[in-house]
Amino acid sequence: MTLPVLRTADAWWLRRPDGAVRVATSATTTAELLADRAAVLAARDGGDPVPVDSLALVSPVTAPCRVVAQMANYASHAKDAGMDPSRVPLAFFRKSSGSISGPSDPIVRPAHVTLLDYEVELGLVVGRAVTAGEEVAASDLPDLVAALVVANDVSARDLQLPKTQFYESKSYRTFTPVGPVLLVLEDGELERLPELRLRLWVDGELRQDELASDMIYRPAEALAALARFQDLAPGDLVLTGTPAGTALSAPPAIVEKVGALLPPHVKWRIFLGKQVKDRRYLQDGNLVEASIATDDGALDLGAQRTVVRWTR
Amino acid sequence: MTLPVLRTADAWWLRRPDGAVRVATSATTTAELLADRAAVLAARDGGDPVPVDSLALVSPVTAPCRVVAQMANYASHAKDAGMDPSRVPLAFFRKSSGSISGPSDPIVRPAHVTLLDYEVELGLVVGRAVTAGEEVAASDLPDLVAALVVANDVSARDLQLPKTQFYESKSYRTFTPVGPVLLVLEDGELERLPELRLRLWVDGELRQDELASDMIYRPAEALAALARFQDLAPGDLVLTGTPAGTALSAPPAIVEKVGALLPPHVKWRIFLGKQVKDRRYLQDGNLVEASIATDDGALDLGAQRTVVRWTR
Repeated sequence: MTLPVLRTADAWWLRRPDGAVRVATSATTTAELLADRAAVLAARDGGDPVPVDSLALVSPVTAPCRVVAQMANYASHAKDAGMDPSRVPLAFFRKSSGSISGPSDPIVRPAHVTLLDYEVELGLVVGRAVTAGEEVAASDLPDLVAALVVANDVSARDLQLPKTQFYESKSYRTFTPVGPVLLVLEDGELERLPELRLRLWVDGELRQDELASDMIYRPAEALAALARFQDLAPGDLVLTGTPAGTALSAPPAIVEKVGALLPPHVKWRIFLGKQVKDRRYLQDGNLVEASIATDDGALDLGAQRTVVRWTR
Repeated sequence: MTLPVLRTADAWWLRRPDGAVRVATSATTTAELLADRAAVLAARDGGDPVPVDSLALVSPVTAPCRVVAQMANYASHAKDAGMDPSRVPLAFFRKSSGSISGPSDPIVRPAHVTLLDYEVELGLVVGRAVTAGEEVAASDLPDLVAALVVANDVSARDLQLPKTQFYESKSYRTFTPVGPVLLVLEDGELERLPELRLRLWVDGELRQDELASDMIYRPAEALAALARFQDLAPGDLVLTGTPAGTALSAPPAIVEKVGALLPPHVKWRIFLGKQVKDRRYLQDGNLVEASIATDDGALDLGAQRTVVRWTR
C-alpha cells in the first residue's frame, strides 16, 4: 500500500485503485502537503473517488523550490558519454524551478535552441530542512527524502556543451516536466529504490530503460555531499541523473580528445553541426512518455505524456 | 551624491561624510530596503551620525536570494586562462545564497578543500521582478539594477576543475563575502559602471586591479540573456565575473590540450598536485581586502577585510 498523491490547479488527490479521492487539506505547496500527512492518510478511506483521467494534473512539486541535479550518475550513461564510471566525480548543478511544468504540458523548444534532448530522472523530494555543513548519515535518508517523482531533465545540448555550465541549458520554461505522482514514502519503501525502472519513449520508441540500481552515487551518498554546502528545505527537488539512451550519445569525452587541438568554438561547431542531422533529438510534435515504477508495480510514480512544440 | 547603504544585524544605515545615519525603515530584507527608497533618501538630512567604524557590518544583501554568477567575463581573466576573449561564451552558474557572508567575516576553508582562491567581482542587485522569457532591453537596465556591491566569489579550485560544474566549489559557507556598501543607484550613475575599478589584495599584495570596462559581456547583455530562462526578484544578486590575477593562473585551456590524451582523473591529479605548492592560494591567516570604486571616488562600494581560516 503506497501513498500516490496527485495535484490539480486547486486540489491534492490520493490515487486509489477505485479512482482519485480529494485530500482534505489547506496545503498549497508541496512542503505544506508533506507536513499534512494525516490528511493524505485520511483519504485512504471513504471519500468520493473520481476517475484519474478526469483530472487536469499539474506538477505535484510546486515552485519556487530549489532544484538541484546530479551530473552523469548512471554507469550506462557515463559509458555512453565515453567516461569511466568508476572515475566519474559526484557533481551537482542547479536548474531554475521556473522550468517545472506539468506531466502533460507541452515541452517548448525556444526559437534559438537547436538540439533538444530528454533525460528521464528519479526526483527526490526533500522532507525536512537541512543546514549546510550538517552531517547526513545513510540512516537519515528516510527522514530526508519524503517522496519520489518522475522528472524529465530536458536539455538544450547546443547551449550546454559550449557553455560548459549546465544551468542555462536546462532551465528554460517547461524544461522540467514533473509528475504525475508524488509518491509519499512509507516505512521501508525507500529500500526498494534500486528496483525502480526508469523508462522513456519518443513517439512510442523506447529510448531509455534502466534500473535505478545503475546509479553511480546512491541518494544517501549524494545527499550527504550536497548537505555539506547547500541548505535544503521541505519541497526541494533533487534529480539523480539519467541512464543511457539520450539523443546525445556521440561521446563528449572522445570529442574532447579529438578536438583538443582545435579552438573550442571550432570543435563545437563541427560537433554540433553533425548532431543537428540526428533525428533522435526532439522534433516538433514528438510525444515523450516517461515512467518510473518497480517491475512488480508495487511502487508506481506514474507516466508523463508531454508533446514537443518548437517555437519558430 | 550617492546612496551608500550599510547594514548591521538589526538596522540599515546611510553612509555620509560625517558618519553613518540610521535609516528609519522596517525593512529586514534587501528587497524591502530597496522598496523603501524614501527612507534611505530621508537619512541624507538630519539624524545622529555615528562613526562607521563603530558599526559591526553584515552583508547588505540578505539571504535567501538567488545568486547567479557569470563565468569568465573579463578579457584579462580569459587570456589568463588561455582562452580567446572574443570566443568566450556568455555562461552562468548558480551559487547557494547560504554562502553569503559579511564584509569582515572570516572566509572558512572546509577541511576537505585544498586550493582556495579569490575572485573580486562587481555584484548587481536586482531591483524589480523579471519573468523568464521577458525581453530585456538596454534601456531597462536602470530599472533592473537597483544597487551595486563588492563580492568575492571564493572558489575551491580542487573541486571546481574535476567536477566541471562550478556550483559546489563556490557555494560553501562564507564563500561569498558581500559588501560593505549597498550602493543604491541614482539617475545616471549606472553609466559610470565601466569606470569602476576592482581591486583585491592578499596580505597587502595587490593581486587583482582592473576596470569593469574590461568585461566581455556588459550587464545589459548579460541580464537580457539571463532573463530568457531565469525569473528574478528584487534583492537577487548577479555576479559579473572577475578580472585577471586569481591564484589559478596556470591555464585550464592549455591543460586541456596537453592532458587531452590522459584520463581526466589523472590529468587533474597531476595539475592540482602542482598547484598545491603555489602559495598564492589562500593560506591560513591571510588577510583578503577587496574594493570597488571609480578612480575619482565618486562611486565607492567600500572595502572588505576578511581573514582566511582553515578548518583542520
